[in-house]
Amino acid sequence: MNYKMIIHTTGQLLGVGSICMLLSAAVSLIYMEISGLWLLLASVIAGILFFVSRFFKPESDVFFAKEGLLTVAFAWIFLSLVGALPFFLSGEIPSYVDSLFETISGFTTTGATILGDVSVLSHGNLFWRSFTHWIGGMGVLVLLVALLPSVSGRSIHMLRAEMAGPTVGKLVPKAKETARILYIFYIALSLLQFILLLCGDMSPFESAIHTMSTAGTGGFGMLNSSIAEYSAYSQWVITVFMFIFSINFNLFFFFFIGKALSAFKSEELWVFTGIVVLSSLVIAFDLRNVYDSFGESIRHSFFQVSAYISTTGFATANTNTWPTLSKALLLLMMFMGGCAGSTAGGLKLSRVILLLKTMRNRVRRVIYPRTVSTVRFEGKSVDEEIVSGVITYFALYVFCIITLFIILSFEPFSFETNFSAAVSAFNNVGPLFGELGNFEAYSGFSKVILSFAMLLGRLEIYPLLILFMPSTWKK
Amino acid sequence: MNYKMIIHTTGQLLGVGSICMLLSAAVSLIYMEISGLWLLLASVIAGILFFVSRFFKPESDVFFAKEGLLTVAFAWIFLSLVGALPFFLSGEIPSYVDSLFETISGFTTTGATILGDVSVLSHGNLFWRSFTHWIGGMGVLVLLVALLPSVSGRSIHMLRAEMAGPTVGKLVPKAKETARILYIFYIALSLLQFILLLCGDMSPFESAIHTMSTAGTGGFGMLNSSIAEYSAYSQWVITVFMFIFSINFNLFFFFFIGKALSAFKSEELWVFTGIVVLSSLVIAFDLRNVYDSFGESIRHSFFQVSAYISTTGFATANTNTWPTLSKALLLLMMFMGGCAGSTAGGLKLSRVILLLKTMRNRVRRVIYPRTVSTVRFEGKSVDEEIVSGVITYFALYVFCIITLFIILSFEPFSFETNFSAAVSAFNNVGPLFGELGNFEAYSGFSKVILSFAMLLGRLEIYPLLILFMPSTWKK
Repeated sequence: MNYKMIIHTTGQLLGVGSICMLLSAAVSLIYMEISGLWLLLASVIAGILFFVSRFFKPESDVFFAKEGLLTVAFAWIFLSLVGALPFFLSGEIPSYVDSLFETISGFTTTGATILGDVSVLSHGNLFWRSFTHWIGGMGVLVLLVALLPSVSGRSIHMLRAEMAGPTVGKLVPKAKETARILYIFYIALSLLQFILLLCGDMSPFESAIHTMSTAGTGGFGMLNSSIAEYSAYSQWVITVFMFIFSINFNLFFFFFIGKALSAFKSEELWVFTGIVVLSSLVIAFDLRNVYDSFGESIRHSFFQVSAYISTTGFATANTNTWPTLSKALLLLMMFMGGCAGSTAGGLKLSRVILLLKTMRNRVRRVIYPRTVSTVRFEGKSVDEEIVSGVITYFALYVFCIITLFIILSFEPFSFETNFSAAVSAFNNVGPLFGELGNFEAYSGFSKVILSFAMLLGRLEIYPLLILFMPSTWKK
Repeated sequence: MNYKMIIHTTGQLLGVGSICMLLSAAVSLIYMEISGLWLLLASVIAGILFFVSRFFKPESDVFFAKEGLLTVAFAWIFLSLVGALPFFLSGEIPSYVDSLFETISGFTTTGATILGDVSVLSHGNLFWRSFTHWIGGMGVLVLLVALLPSVSGRSIHMLRAEMAGPTVGKLVPKAKETARILYIFYIALSLLQFILLLCGDMSPFESAIHTMSTAGTGGFGMLNSSIAEYSAYSQWVITVFMFIFSINFNLFFFFFIGKALSAFKSEELWVFTGIVVLSSLVIAFDLRNVYDSFGESIRHSFFQVSAYISTTGFATANTNTWPTLSKALLLLMMFMGGCAGSTAGGLKLSRVILLLKTMRNRVRRVIYPRTVSTVRFEGKSVDEEIVSGVITYFALYVFCIITLFIILSFEPFSFETNFSAAVSAFNNVGPLFGELGNFEAYSGFSKVILSFAMLLGRLEIYPLLILFMPSTWKK
């Protein structure tokens, strides 16, 4: 095992984190806030750790899938441990476990909060909180690969381990170029949303916060009512961008290089659009007696469907008071998530499609044992190994959620609350059904478990799972 | 497709049903009840259908897996349609949809009821209701195979399609002999429980009802309070027999033919025993402040754990008032179910074990792509086809429950109620968490859907699924 390379890479990432916290400290400076000093201190600590890690110079370039998985696990854990410092040191979140929960919720783009009242946070910390969404959305190691010159053979293994979805395709032969292209689109789309929000009723600071949270499909806002108090225009802008950031980024690339047709032919895109439109209409109909006008129902239903399927978790309405059918559909969205290769969480739509097709295929095989047929997706037949990987991932996924639910049941809250907490955390969505409005009331133990679950969901299980396998640590 | 053979076999089964209803009519006679006449009429109708079916003499013996699956589907549907007549004709259940729900709940050994007050049923109908559990538990076609002399090559296909679990092993080379041996053990164990219950505070009628419901792991009782009003002795007898009827019947056979050691070495049996004991102890501890003495907690916890994991669904206590952890564990039991080859429902423990082992195996493969390892169960390595079948079944199972839950969400009941209704019906357990005590308040549409779900769960999806595949009906 190439431990030195893992430490070295984790250190490099802390360097990137240090710069990001420095940027947030600069925001504090604008508002002349004391919290800026604590952001600066955290940035310095991350910087020191970066310099210390440089002493662990890797002796070899050997870097396999296992090293890639472990690097991703360590990088995310250490970045979260350090990223929680500004909240804790400034005293704005008095408990370190709570700060860690909030930070992991940020990096994993969950957007679940332990803050009953968000207004306790200063501008600097609010900015840092939403910034974690933006960094975590596309991937912290993807960012590293895009930024650093000397990453040699390890790039592709790290990309594979961090990027979500059943398969990771490189857009161009070099992993580094792929990472750069992804970030260029990410930045361009973020800028576009920022400008559009500025044209509405949001201040530059508000626009920045909400753009970063939308881009990462995270969901941290700055008001306790989330997006409910903003204008219908702002709500529609966010709706559209939650949708856009849930689309496979490869399609933007195809579109950009003149292969618009191949982008529009994407099976996943059409299924995704179909699900969003159809379920929004069903929910709007279900809400016909809840709101004054059908227009209002449509706005809320499109917003909430996009918020749940993109696993952002913003809110324009208290969905807890919605009818059971609407709530059940939103819960279903939580499981599905957006497209693979986007910033959205959940199971990913391409996995759901592959699963359904595989089941149809296997059912046929049971009934007609002599027929041979393969699963086709996006116009190609899918490798048996990928199919088997998808089914295994699904089984693992269900077991993780059930286990998480059982552990949370030690808490005195209702069935609905604990179940939605498990689903929401693991799928990186964020909201909570039931009697609690946020995760504040959960015990420290449950918060640690939930934090771990958010990481498990974001990193798609394997990187963290191998930490617990004895064979990983054998010589 | 050998339609005539399918009709012929379904007809033969209605003949068996006719005799069973005649027996129930005889019970009515003892109590001089008018409902006996309606049981008699239903018996005559089933008898007429049996005679009509004899005109469809099969021209050939051709009988493949597909015919086996279709026969099972038709046999269960028609037996339920006719079996519902006594409740409906007697007016004791005024709606035919309700009667059908109750009958399917009986045959599938679910034990879910639409009766707010069970005391409206006469002795004859109470007997018939529990009798459906006993017949459905081991399997109606298994009974047919055991009884009839001329079933030729179709026996094994029907057994495979009806018996639960990932693999169906014949005990002896002939399917017919296997079916007979299974029923001999089934009758012997039922008689033993009947005698033990007679020794307690139950009348012969009560003992018979509860024995049949325990043997089929169904759960229909005759009091609204289920088993709560009977003595601790009776409760313990039922606890033990719920456990026994959830064990793979093959083990009794091995034990009987002198291979006790091989029976006691069963991996599934040990895992099953471990789960029951461990979770009963955890729940008893969780209940320490609910009941006066620890003995009482132990009795309730062992009873309810056995009731849920065996998917019987009897109750000695209102588990709705239990702490969340206890409820979550009971919910988990609902999913797991008993051992394969028993009368219990649910996913079956051997599937759960195989799933967990397969996941461990596949996770290893992802991390160490070059290692080759097979899944081992009960001391043998498991065929890749069975492994793949188990995973596919699990994915289908999860999708069915989610779909069912979404459909039930059109009802105005709570999240917990609808979710537990879906899980309870599909796993053939019976009880309902949440604000409703039974299924009475559900709409007719939902009751039909729930009835279908109970059949899907009992027959393990495939037989009913192929009814909806266009390719089944092509020439």
